[in-house]
Amino acid sequence: MTGNVLNTKKIRLDLAYHGRAFLGWQKQTTGRTVQGELENALSRLFEREVQVFGAGRTDSGAHARQQVCHFDLPGEYPLTQLMKALNGMTHRSLKILSATHAPEDFHARYTPHVKTYCYRIDAAFFPDPFTPDLYYHSPGPLPLRLEAEKFLEAVSGTHDFASFCSAENSTETTVRRIISARLQEEAGDKWIFTLVGNGFLQHMVRIIAGTALMIGRGKLEARTAISALDRGGGRLLLGPTLPARGLCLEKVEYFFSAPSPGERREP
Amino acid sequence: MTGNVLNTKKIRLDLAYHGRAFLGWQKQTTGRTVQGELENALSRLFEREVQVFGAGRTDSGAHARQQVCHFDLPGEYPLTQLMKALNGMTHRSLKILSATHAPEDFHARYTPHVKTYCYRIDAAFFPDPFTPDLYYHSPGPLPLRLEAEKFLEAVSGTHDFASFCSAENSTETTVRRIISARLQEEAGDKWIFTLVGNGFLQHMVRIIAGTALMIGRGKLEARTAISALDRGGGRLLLGPTLPARGLCLEKVEYFFSAPSPGERREP
Repeated sequence: MTGNVLNTKKIRLDLAYHGRAFLGWQKQTTGRTVQGELENALSRLFEREVQVFGAGRTDSGAHARQQVCHFDLPGEYPLTQLMKALNGMTHRSLKILSATHAPEDFHARYTPHVKTYCYRIDAAFFPDPFTPDLYYHSPGPLPLRLEAEKFLEAVSGTHDFASFCSAENSTETTVRRIISARLQEEAGDKWIFTLVGNGFLQHMVRIIAGTALMIGRGKLEARTAISALDRGGGRLLLGPTLPARGLCLEKVEYFFSAPSPGERREP
Repeated sequence: MTGNVLNTKKIRLDLAYHGRAFLGWQKQTTGRTVQGELENALSRLFEREVQVFGAGRTDSGAHARQQVCHFDLPGEYPLTQLMKALNGMTHRSLKILSATHAPEDFHARYTPHVKTYCYRIDAAFFPDPFTPDLYYHSPGPLPLRLEAEKFLEAVSGTHDFASFCSAENSTETTVRRIISARLQEEAGDKWIFTLVGNGFLQHMVRIIAGTALMIGRGKLEARTAISALDRGGGRLLLGPTLPARGLCLEKVEYFFSAPSPGERREP
């Protein structure tokens, strides 16, 4: 089965990756990154430099179940074969889920979209041997869960999250909109934070999760943390930045509807 | 919270382990095993030799979500502390889920029980980066799924499985009863075999899964494989022994009802 070659040359890739194998999304000179793996493979395949643009950077060690990126295809190439070639040429902890033709004006980062992130915590006294890489192990109950949820409700909406990001954050504005922020309990003393929003600052999800966790354990007051919103106070009013391994970019959804006609998924 | 110390000294442990860290259940002189880890920890804790009896041996690399074993407690010791001490003293890929007082006549292996095993296959063209250790990657569809299911139906019931085990099998009889054998499809081109039975010979689940897989792909005829039941033919009529990493002992259920009063689970 060969993918149709359309006139458009803009290609969208949907990817999953296990963060342990990568120093994050963004290309670096010092080690393996997701962007670096893709650009290397594409450049070898087409014998010229190819730049890949991601929907967002993910931290070193953070996972993605569905990250999106795009690039301009230098020449014609059937999409099914492209997907197989890229899967074969990149690290096994990275999987290209689909390769599709995208509209010429599509941009993985700038086309309006919503991202869903999860932060997973294993709160059992001893960690689950099956999930050490996907959950942050932080033993103990959350007796003040309702307070933690009050904080999550307060961060929802449009706010200036200047206090909720790494000092290295380099974006122009620190205003972001969180569409929803939930805390759910899973079997086996596990907790999952799910944040949906139109963009997140560096470390923002890890700081929100760390703050909610501290509140749920009575080590921080919800109103103190809430007061740090909208530049009402600094980073020190909040909880710790939790480790990246509990963080996963679950999906990226763009604000356009129908899939392009040349869509090809793995057979 | 301290566990009650009852008169009985027989202790049942329920465990989970990730098989990658172990050369299987059974104690060996050459490397880390689950039984070895437990016996070492118990012997250090009580300063005398302690023998641990498992419900069954699991292969090197195979996993367990709920394995059961027992030992005789040499002295009094609160169960909650015992569980914490053992979890702290053993490898992190092993987790003691519960420690309970068992009736004096309980024996993890000889008390009648039913075991559930799963064999997991990732049949996608490229493997899921999140599950490389729990699924055996064997790409390709199963067009003859119904034939594979016919075979699974045929192995159900009481049969002589002499052809369905490793040449090293050392049990007295090769007759076993399979209560149910199912094949289910999961999202993402994954397949799960679930076998429930009162005991399994060495490699029996891996051979049944390998045989069903070959039948589902048209590389082996169901009737040929079925003819190997009850000593009707040899090992060569069947499919390959699939790798251990796809195998997981899901649970062990004993034929007695109420939990003992001293039961303590992790807080």
